[in-house]
Amino acid sequence: MILELQSDLTPETKSELLMKLRALGWEYRELPPTDVQRIGILDEAVHDEEACRRLPGVVRVLAVRSPYKLASREMHPAGTLVRAGDVVIGGRRIVVIAGPCAVESREQALSIARRVQQDGAALFRGGVFKPRTSPYAFQGLGEEGLKILAEVRQALGIPVVTELTSPLQADRVGACTDIVQIGSRNMQNFELLKCAAHLGKPVLLKRGFAATIDEWLLSAEYLLFEGNGQVILCERGIRTFETSTRNTLDLSAVPLLKRITHLPVIVDPSHATGIRDLVIPMGRAAIAAGADGLMVEVHTDPEQALSDGMQCLFPDQFRSLMQDLRAIAPVVGRVFD
Amino acid sequence: MILELQSDLTPETKSELLMKLRALGWEYRELPPTDVQRIGILDEAVHDEEACRRLPGVVRVLAVRSPYKLASREMHPAGTLVRAGDVVIGGRRIVVIAGPCAVESREQALSIARRVQQDGAALFRGGVFKPRTSPYAFQGLGEEGLKILAEVRQALGIPVVTELTSPLQADRVGACTDIVQIGSRNMQNFELLKCAAHLGKPVLLKRGFAATIDEWLLSAEYLLFEGNGQVILCERGIRTFETSTRNTLDLSAVPLLKRITHLPVIVDPSHATGIRDLVIPMGRAAIAAGADGLMVEVHTDPEQALSDGMQCLFPDQFRSLMQDLRAIAPVVGRVFD
Amino acid sequence: MILELQSDLTPETKSELLMKLRALGWEYRELPPTDVQRIGILDEAVHDEEACRRLPGVVRVLAVRSPYKLASREMHPAGTLVRAGDVVIGGRRIVVIAGPCAVESREQALSIARRVQQDGAALFRGGVFKPRTSPYAFQGLGEEGLKILAEVRQALGIPVVTELTSPLQADRVGACTDIVQIGSRNMQNFELLKCAAHLGKPVLLKRGFAATIDEWLLSAEYLLFEGNGQVILCERGIRTFETSTRNTLDLSAVPLLKRITHLPVIVDPSHATGIRDLVIPMGRAAIAAGADGLMVEVHTDPEQALSDGMQCLFPDQFRSLMQDLRAIAPVVGRVFD
Amino acid sequence: MILELQSDLTPETKSELLMKLRALGWEYRELPPTDVQRIGILDEAVHDEEACRRLPGVVRVLAVRSPYKLASREMHPAGTLVRAGDVVIGGRRIVVIAGPCAVESREQALSIARRVQQDGAALFRGGVFKPRTSPYAFQGLGEEGLKILAEVRQALGIPVVTELTSPLQADRVGACTDIVQIGSRNMQNFELLKCAAHLGKPVLLKRGFAATIDEWLLSAEYLLFEGNGQVILCERGIRTFETSTRNTLDLSAVPLLKRITHLPVIVDPSHATGIRDLVIPMGRAAIAAGADGLMVEVHTDPEQALSDGMQCLFPDQFRSLMQDLRAIAPVVGRVFD
Repeated sequence: MILELQSDLTPETKSELLMKLRALGWEYRELPPTDVQRIGILDEAVHDEEACRRLPGVVRVLAVRSPYKLASREMHPAGTLVRAGDVVIGGRRIVVIAGPCAVESREQALSIARRVQQDGAALFRGGVFKPRTSPYAFQGLGEEGLKILAEVRQALGIPVVTELTSPLQADRVGACTDIVQIGSRNMQNFELLKCAAHLGKPVLLKRGFAATIDEWLLSAEYLLFEGNGQVILCERGIRTFETSTRNTLDLSAVPLLKRITHLPVIVDPSHATGIRDLVIPMGRAAIAAGADGLMVEVHTDPEQALSDGMQCLFPDQFRSLMQDLRAIAPVVGRVFD
Repeated sequence: MILELQSDLTPETKSELLMKLRALGWEYRELPPTDVQRIGILDEAVHDEEACRRLPGVVRVLAVRSPYKLASREMHPAGTLVRAGDVVIGGRRIVVIAGPCAVESREQALSIARRVQQDGAALFRGGVFKPRTSPYAFQGLGEEGLKILAEVRQALGIPVVTELTSPLQADRVGACTDIVQIGSRNMQNFELLKCAAHLGKPVLLKRGFAATIDEWLLSAEYLLFEGNGQVILCERGIRTFETSTRNTLDLSAVPLLKRITHLPVIVDPSHATGIRDLVIPMGRAAIAAGADGLMVEVHTDPEQALSDGMQCLFPDQFRSLMQDLRAIAPVVGRVFD
Repeated sequence: MILELQSDLTPETKSELLMKLRALGWEYRELPPTDVQRIGILDEAVHDEEACRRLPGVVRVLAVRSPYKLASREMHPAGTLVRAGDVVIGGRRIVVIAGPCAVESREQALSIARRVQQDGAALFRGGVFKPRTSPYAFQGLGEEGLKILAEVRQALGIPVVTELTSPLQADRVGACTDIVQIGSRNMQNFELLKCAAHLGKPVLLKRGFAATIDEWLLSAEYLLFEGNGQVILCERGIRTFETSTRNTLDLSAVPLLKRITHLPVIVDPSHATGIRDLVIPMGRAAIAAGADGLMVEVHTDPEQALSDGMQCLFPDQFRSLMQDLRAIAPVVGRVFD
Repeated sequence: MILELQSDLTPETKSELLMKLRALGWEYRELPPTDVQRIGILDEAVHDEEACRRLPGVVRVLAVRSPYKLASREMHPAGTLVRAGDVVIGGRRIVVIAGPCAVESREQALSIARRVQQDGAALFRGGVFKPRTSPYAFQGLGEEGLKILAEVRQALGIPVVTELTSPLQADRVGACTDIVQIGSRNMQNFELLKCAAHLGKPVLLKRGFAATIDEWLLSAEYLLFEGNGQVILCERGIRTFETSTRNTLDLSAVPLLKRITHLPVIVDPSHATGIRDLVIPMGRAAIAAGADGLMVEVHTDPEQALSDGMQCLFPDQFRSLMQDLRAIAPVVGRVFD
C-alpha cells in the first residue's frame, strides 16, 4: 500500500499518522517524494484500502499487488539513480562495466583497466573471491586481489566492482570496492544480502541462474528493506535445456523490469552466452532492449585467463562493441559518452 | 564431409566420382558452388577424410562435425536467400512479416494487411488452421480462411504466410500461400515436414518451444534433405521456469545460428513474450542481435481478437516499431526499405 | 459444469432438458452414470451455477474448474477402464507393455514378444513408423513392420501397441494394432489426435517432453471430445536442465493425475532415463507411486538394436523387474498376475 | 586417479611414494582401504596413467573421469556410513528424518518430535534459521529455536538436524545439532560449505533446485576436500516448467547416485511436491527407487504452520507412510526398524 499525503500536511498530522502506523504494528517506510509526500506500507497482510484512506493526512491510497513492495515501480516512479564515484547508473547515459573475470595479477589488472577505460568503460570489474563449481578450480587471489583492486582504483581513478561471497570478508571487500557485487549463486543467500546492504555501498545484484523475476525482486527487496536503496539489477542468463550457450540470456526481462521496478537494469552478455563471438551482438541487443548498461568481460590474453577465457572479449572487440553502443544509444533515447 | 572438386574437372571425372559414391552407397548432394564445385556427403558414418581425399576429382575435403549436414554453414558459406514473390529473406534488407494471429474475417484481414503493408511489412501473416491447446478454443476459419488469404494477396499484391497443420490440408494450403509455416508444436512432426518440403514453396520453420538448436537444425535438415532449400528459421521463445513472460525469447540463438547455418533467421517477439509492451523493445533487440527479420502480430482491435489478443500490437505501435528498425538497421549493416 | 439429474427423471423431462441445452448453444455430453444420471457441460464460458441448477430435471450442479472437462476426475469418479483384447488397464491389475523400441525383423519381434509374454507382459510394443530427430537415423520398417506386428499378435495372441505418426497411415495402423500410440513429439499434433480418436481403438497418449500436466490433459480432452473415451496416459520424462539422464521422469505426476483425472496412467522408465540400469529401480518406483502399469523396452540384443539400445533391458533384467512388481503390487493394493 | 598399493608395502616405500607426490605438487588423499591400500590423486590435470603406474609401491592405477574425485564411487566402493548418535545412514536400515518445517515453539517442537519418534522417525528436523524468499515471511526463531532443539534432543534422546545459513551462526548451530543441513539455496554457497565442513558434524547437503548432479557432487567434494567425509545427499526436487507441483522430484537421481557416488542418498518428498497428498506415494517411490531414507515434514496443526503448511503431513498420515515403508523395505533388500 502506498499512502499519498496531503500537500499541506502539518508536522503534527504527520506525527499522528506515524504513531498510528506504529500502533497498528505495520511496517512502513517514507518513500522518495514525487509531487507529494508518500509512505509505503510493507506488510503483505494489509489489504484494506478503505481503512488506509481514513488514516490522518492521507489523501490517496495505491495498492501494490506484487510480493515485493519497496522494489516496485509504484514506490518510486521516477526511477532510482545509483551513484558510484562520478558514475550514475540508471540515468540517460549508458554505463559499461568491464574487466577480467578474475584479477590475476597487478599487471594484468592494470593493463586491462587502462584499455577498457580508454575505450569507454565507466567502471572496472574483477573478481578476487571467486565462487567456483569445483574446489580444484582457481579460487581467486583473495586479500591480495583486493589490494590490486585498490591500486587500480587509485592509479586510474576508475570506480571498481567486485564480488562479496561471505559475511566474513564483508568489511575488507567493502573498504576496497565502489560497488559490491552479489553473484548469481548467492542471489538467495539472504544472510549475505543483509550483510551487503549494510556496507554503505551500492549493490549489484546478479540474477540467480534459476531465479524467477519475482524472486529476484524479492532479493532486491531484502536490500531495500535493510535500508540500502542503491541497488542495480544485472541479468546474466538463466539455466534452460539449451546447451549451445552457457546460459540463456533472458533479454525480455529488461523491458519487463523497466515497467515493474524503479531499479536500474544492466546485462552481462559474457556469462550469459559463454561464447566470445556472441558478446558483441548480445551487448548491442541488450541496449536496444532498453538496458541501462552492460557488464562485460575483457582480457588482454583470453587464452591464458585463469577462468572463463572462452567468453572474454579481446580489447579490440571491446572497442568495437563500444562503437556499436554509440550508434545504438540515440535510437533508444540514450547517450553513451 | 564436403568434397571440393578440381577447378578443371572434366565431365568424365565427375561421372566417375558420382558413380563411385553411388557404388559406396553414400548419400550425397551437389552443393551450391562457391569458387569451386562441391559435393556434400551426408552419411554420418563417413569419417575417413583420407579416403574421401583419394576419390577422383577431389582436391580438398572438409569435415562437417555437426549432426545436421545440409543445414550447416560449411555447406553454403554465402548464405541462403529465400524468395517469396519479390521479397528476399536473408539478404541485406530486413524483412518484416506482420498480421493477425488468426484470420477472423475478410474485413479484418484486409484492413490489417493494408495497414501493415503501408507501414513497412513485406509479407502478411494470418493463421487459418490454428493448433490450439484446448479443443474448446477457436480453431481457425479453415477453408474459408484460405480463400480470404488468397483475396488479400491478390487485392494488395502482398505475399502471404500461413501455417500447415496436417498432410491432409497440404495441397490446399500450398495453393494459397507464398510461404508455408510449420508451427512450434509441429517442429518435430517429421511426416508434416516431408509433406511441406514437397509443396514447392519456401518453408518458415518455427523453433519447437522446447527444442535445442541442434534439434531445430535437424528438422530443417529434413526439409533440405527432401529437396527444399528455401527454409527460414524463426525463433519464437522457449519454455523455461520463468512465467512472467509467455516464453523466454532466446535471442542468443540468432548470432549463434548465423555462424553455424546458412539459413535466414527471423524472430517472433509476439509469441515469445506474450505481452504487447515487450514486442517493440524485443523487436529492436532482435535486429540488433543480427536477425534477418521479424514476424509480428498486429490487430486493429486486439481486445476483440479471437486468439492471442494480449500480444498483438496496435497499428500505431507497429508503425513505431518500423521507425525504430529504420534507425537500427544501419548500425548492423542492414537496410530496411 | 456437471448436472446431476433427478433419480426419478422421466424421459419427457430429460428431452426437455436436452432441448434447452441445445437451445442455449451449450456443448454437452451424457456422462458415465455414478449413482445418478449426469450431464457434463463443456463450454468454459458457462459459469452460472444457479442458472444450471434451475434447468429441468437437475438436482445438483458441480463446477469443474479445470480447463479440461471430460478428462477431469469429477466427470467419472469411478475411473476409466481401458480394454485391449482381454487386457484391462486402469483396474486392480498392474499391466506391463514390453518390447523393442523398433520392430527390426520378423525374428527379432517374435523372439522378444515370446520372452516378455512368458515373463509377464500383457501387451507387446514395437515401433514401425519411428519419429527420429535426424533424417539420417533409422526411420522404422513402415508397412513391412505392420505386417510383422500382425503376425506377432496372431501367433502369440498378445495385443500390440504401435505408434501412429501421420493421418496418412491411420487406416493401416488402425487395422494392425490393439492400442494406437501417440508419441511425445505428437502430443500437440491436434490433427493427428482427431484422426487417432476415430480409429475405434484405445489411444495411449504419451506426455509431450515439455508439456505441462494441464496441456497433456487438454490433449486427452481432444480425444475424449472426439468421442473416444478409451485413453491411457503415459508419463515418459520431461526435458529439464539435467543431462545425466535422457529426460527427468516426473513420477509425482502419477499420484497427481490419479487425483485429477479418471484416465489410467502408466510410466515408461526406458525413454525417461535412457539408461538401462535405471529402468528397474524406476519401474519399481512408478508402481510404488501408484501407476497402473509400465511400458518398458526390452531387446534380446541391445547392442545391435537399431534405435535406443542403451536403454533396452536384457530379457533377464525384464524378468527380474517383473518379480519386483509382484512383490510391490500388494503394498499399493494392486495385483500383478 | 586412484593408486592401488602393493599388499606388502613397506613403510619406507610408502614414505618414498608420498614424498614423490608432494614433490610433483599433486594434491592427494589416503582413501578408505578396500582389500588394498589406496591413494587418490585429486588434480584434474593428472592424466598420465602410465606415469602413475611407475610410482614406487603402486600396482594398479584407476582413472576417475568425473570432475569430482573424493565423492566418486571408485574412491570408496563399499559406500559411506554416516553416523549421528546411534543412527547410521547409508546402511541396510532405512532412516527417516521428520519434523516441522520450522520450529515455532517449545510445545510444538516437543509434541511433534514425540509423535514422529513413536512412529518410526530416527531423527528430528526443525528449521530455526529459515532462508525465505521474501523478507516479510517468518524468518525462524533463531537463537531461541536452537535452545528448543537442544531441549528436544535431551528430552527425547533423538538426534536433530537443522539448517545453517551463515558462517556467523556456525559455532552456535554446530553446538546444538547432530547433523548440519545445507539448504537448497546454499548448495553453491562455497564459503558456507567450507565452514560447515569444519564443524565436526555430518552434513546433509540438499540439492540446489537448479543444480545438475555433477554440480551437486562437486559441492559435496568441497566438504570432502575440507576433510569431512560424513556427507548425506538429499534430493528435494528441481525447478522445471511444470507448475502443478512445487518442484519436480528427480527420483531417477537416486539410482544414478548410488552408482556414481559412495555417499548416502535420501529424499525429501515434502519440499519436492509441495502437496500433502503426494508425500506418501512419493515417499514410497523414493524407497522403491533405492533411497537410504526420507526427510519428511510433519505438523500437528498444518493449517496453522508458520511456513509450508500445505506440504506437512498430519501425524496419522506420517504413521501410515511408515507402515508402507515397512512393507516396501524388504522388496529392495532393506529393513526399516
